[in-house]
Amino acid sequence: MSNPTLELLSAHACFGGEQRFYQHSSREIGLPMKFSVYLPPQALQGEKVPALLYLAGLTCDEKTFMEKAGAQRLASELGLALVAPDTSPRGANVPGEADAWDFGVGAGFYLDATQAPWKQHWRMESYLAGELMPLLSAQLPIDKARIGIFGHSMGGHGALTLALRHPGMFKSLSAFAPIAAPTQCPWGRKAFGGYLGRDESEWRKHDASVLMALQETPPYPGGILIDQGLADKFLLEMQLLPETFEAACAQAGQPLTLRRQAGYDHGYYFVQSFVEDHLNHHAQQLR
Amino acid sequence: MSNPTLELLSAHACFGGEQRFYQHSSREIGLPMKFSVYLPPQALQGEKVPALLYLAGLTCDEKTFMEKAGAQRLASELGLALVAPDTSPRGANVPGEADAWDFGVGAGFYLDATQAPWKQHWRMESYLAGELMPLLSAQLPIDKARIGIFGHSMGGHGALTLALRHPGMFKSLSAFAPIAAPTQCPWGRKAFGGYLGRDESEWRKHDASVLMALQETPPYPGGILIDQGLADKFLLEMQLLPETFEAACAQAGQPLTLRRQAGYDHGYYFVQSFVEDHLNHHAQQLR
Repeated sequence: MSNPTLELLSAHACFGGEQRFYQHSSREIGLPMKFSVYLPPQALQGEKVPALLYLAGLTCDEKTFMEKAGAQRLASELGLALVAPDTSPRGANVPGEADAWDFGVGAGFYLDATQAPWKQHWRMESYLAGELMPLLSAQLPIDKARIGIFGHSMGGHGALTLALRHPGMFKSLSAFAPIAAPTQCPWGRKAFGGYLGRDESEWRKHDASVLMALQETPPYPGGILIDQGLADKFLLEMQLLPETFEAACAQAGQPLTLRRQAGYDHGYYFVQSFVEDHLNHHAQQLR
Repeated sequence: MSNPTLELLSAHACFGGEQRFYQHSSREIGLPMKFSVYLPPQALQGEKVPALLYLAGLTCDEKTFMEKAGAQRLASELGLALVAPDTSPRGANVPGEADAWDFGVGAGFYLDATQAPWKQHWRMESYLAGELMPLLSAQLPIDKARIGIFGHSMGGHGALTLALRHPGMFKSLSAFAPIAAPTQCPWGRKAFGGYLGRDESEWRKHDASVLMALQETPPYPGGILIDQGLADKFLLEMQLLPETFEAACAQAGQPLTLRRQAGYDHGYYFVQSFVEDHLNHHAQQLR
């Protein structure tokens, strides 16, 4: 088998480290996929560093977090790599794939679709867990024993569910304003219906609150951190439902720090305000 | 005369302060103009705070700095307001205004055009110095005696020239990769020819290096800070010419800290890497 090739699209010095943008031909997706990596100075000097996989929200792409979250300053200081994939396949040309902002392109929901016409390319879970992370651990100075995961909104859903569905893969976990109970909210029900079909028992396998409630021992004894803005219109529209995840954590005995931030909305001015607390949360657990 | 009205387009909690986006009907430009303001917590609590006017580069707008520079964290801590205007009039419908990325829309060069068809709307200097800053000092909790100015690329040219052309208006000054000698570089010669006409003596009034060399006493005795990436392709293409400004400062006895940053390019990963040093530079002089 030929070595999978990472094509470096651009690289930018940043806080003594390097901000890189890559493209590669994905086996799982069957299309070219882009992602971004921030390597701290320690990694450029040859050290294998811990890494955080960041999953972005609806309509975002692999650039959003790196451009808008202001995370590189502290990542440089802490010696953490940051990895951000795209949020869906692009260029599949599935009919209707770009008709909605909350389904299809930019809205992969970090799962493997089982329904036509999505199932051929929309395989974000297998892509991330089975292809991208192993590839990066093999080809970049990243310590595969020290990987954390976090995300925002749809990406918060992705972080919580991938962490719970792949025990041991991610050593630390946090989220910003996650879609925390997708089987019970309009975004999640639309996406799961389209990607997974009508059998709601299949949906529950991708609902962080359902998965957490089923845990026999707390999967993250060091704690999970979630920040949620109280002026977030999607919280008010019942798309996020952090209280459902909070109840599931209580049921499982999982320590959770759910911080309700007065006045903050759903965007990256919220994310950047608290991103340092998340990096510190992960760094402490990945030490 | 009726009170000029600021229309608040959006507001986002950010590091305990507020990131705001405004639009207003500009008297000097004759069109609606957008700008952004970050107010630190101290301003929201009613204190009049010092402010920094940030001028962005070619193709950017009033959102670029606030989204990509990661400046709000330290601005919140230091109690500094940040103000970022757009880079040109928009919606003038001047024939050819959007044909080039380095002239016309997104490329106002922070001067008042004297040549048709640009002179009616392209009046960025009078807009900023004579309209926007007085308006903000009157309507927001900003201390007009403690205003600094900085900018990037074309906006670095804007910061240096507005500071030198309006003595006393800006108490502190810095720049990222400024177009430091525009009468001698292709971008500047194209813009000045189009906006100011063929008489090069008019161009020299908007060239920071020429203006600095004419100073009889150093206008910024506390020093000017400039960062310049050495992997900046526009430096290599002789668009920026920091050494010309450096020589002019030496001639005028103006203290200048010109930091040549190995490996850094022209973009916002460079800006964000050093923005804190700039905020600290200004905060120290505005105290």
